[in-house]
Amino acid sequence: MSSPLDPTRADVLYEGKAKRLYETDREGVLWVEYLDQATAFDGKKKDSIAGKGTLNSEISALLFEYLAAEGIPSHLLKTLGATEQLVRRVDIIPLEVVVRNVAAGSLSKRIGWAEGTALPRTIVEFYFKNDDLSDPHLSEEHIDILQLASQEELADIRRQALAVNEALGRLFDEVGIDLVDFKIEFGRTPEGEILLADEISPDNCRLWEKGSGRKLDKDVYRRDLGDLVSVYEEVRGRLQEHLGQARGTVQ
Amino acid sequence: MSSPLDPTRADVLYEGKAKRLYETDREGVLWVEYLDQATAFDGKKKDSIAGKGTLNSEISALLFEYLAAEGIPSHLLKTLGATEQLVRRVDIIPLEVVVRNVAAGSLSKRIGWAEGTALPRTIVEFYFKNDDLSDPHLSEEHIDILQLASQEELADIRRQALAVNEALGRLFDEVGIDLVDFKIEFGRTPEGEILLADEISPDNCRLWEKGSGRKLDKDVYRRDLGDLVSVYEEVRGRLQEHLGQARGTVQ
Repeated sequence: MSSPLDPTRADVLYEGKAKRLYETDREGVLWVEYLDQATAFDGKKKDSIAGKGTLNSEISALLFEYLAAEGIPSHLLKTLGATEQLVRRVDIIPLEVVVRNVAAGSLSKRIGWAEGTALPRTIVEFYFKNDDLSDPHLSEEHIDILQLASQEELADIRRQALAVNEALGRLFDEVGIDLVDFKIEFGRTPEGEILLADEISPDNCRLWEKGSGRKLDKDVYRRDLGDLVSVYEEVRGRLQEHLGQARGTVQ
Repeated sequence: MSSPLDPTRADVLYEGKAKRLYETDREGVLWVEYLDQATAFDGKKKDSIAGKGTLNSEISALLFEYLAAEGIPSHLLKTLGATEQLVRRVDIIPLEVVVRNVAAGSLSKRIGWAEGTALPRTIVEFYFKNDDLSDPHLSEEHIDILQLASQEELADIRRQALAVNEALGRLFDEVGIDLVDFKIEFGRTPEGEILLADEISPDNCRLWEKGSGRKLDKDVYRRDLGDLVSVYEEVRGRLQEHLGQARGTVQ
């Protein structure tokens, strides 16, 4: 929860599809509010879903805290309540970094492999975060000429993305879920470090229940497969139970 | 021209959009016939254009012979007549290898740079030659999991593609044309060597007249900008005159 020592929320800096970002009165600190909004297909499908903001905020915080304990820091500083967080201010690199373990979604369309086909190796893809261009797929040479990231930064991004995959894949495996793919974003700190940012939630992961293959992610919304809230609650429940137990063991 | 020593043409092996490939009675040798056909937009636009087969066959032969003299071999063995060639039989790697010096076409759409914007460096792109998937853009990791080429082969393809760009860029520059971009294909010889194959013609290059920017390539057909044959004749004429003079100088 917010305390008198926390910074004060100021003007809206940026409003995304499912989050609002505010300035604060403390240098280098931003205030994030997760919204009850769901969008898909470049914003063509859009709905307000009560409870989604809380779920994504809590799941994202659980995952960022888990990753920090695994040696992968993120922009998350503190959770303030059900839907709000304090985060480090970073300069977001306009790349959607997608890590894939199993063929699904746009990869299935691109290379013609049926959804659910295990990839012979994990791959990392880059998409240009640019709504006007519909988030096109980029090669490392495109990233270079667009000056989105240096070669060294891109190598760091790839290394961190694979480390996130390794750690999250293990965690989800332990709660009976296959981590099929996910999208993350990175930012540059004022010191020039590459830092994991944005959010990690069922909005930007594909999570399939082991055995049944039941989808526990935003495809439920995208493809009208059922109730998003109950599915996200199940993901949160499994993570909370497992991470709570794990903490208990350590203490 | 064909001589009694040449192999004999046998069954059709493959028919592409603008070429027909025949088996011959000699091992390792195929017979190519350039057709009077033009297609664009995944085959949605299609026309028969008298004289186009001859022009592409002659331009492609001129360019392959020039590249061979520059130290870049290709599958071309011999021209047989106006529209026919003997080529080495190779196992075509299903990649469209695109080299770009200036933004145009799909790159302009992808990254939002206006046509004609000079790139800060030459880039090489790869597309999956697969009509059912509409020739999607691939990263090196996609190429790896699709097992289209090994990392060593891909490095060789990139090196040869850049060498072709260097040599062709110089040649076209000398005849008053900017080489904006081009698409080439490679094959594997029975010995496992990567060899430049397919064709190089105004069908798969963007050629802009220096100064005026007048298009001397298939965009004339794609975008209905005028008469394709007279434009291709101009390219052939400039190349013949220049390469003939160059040969004259050497002797």
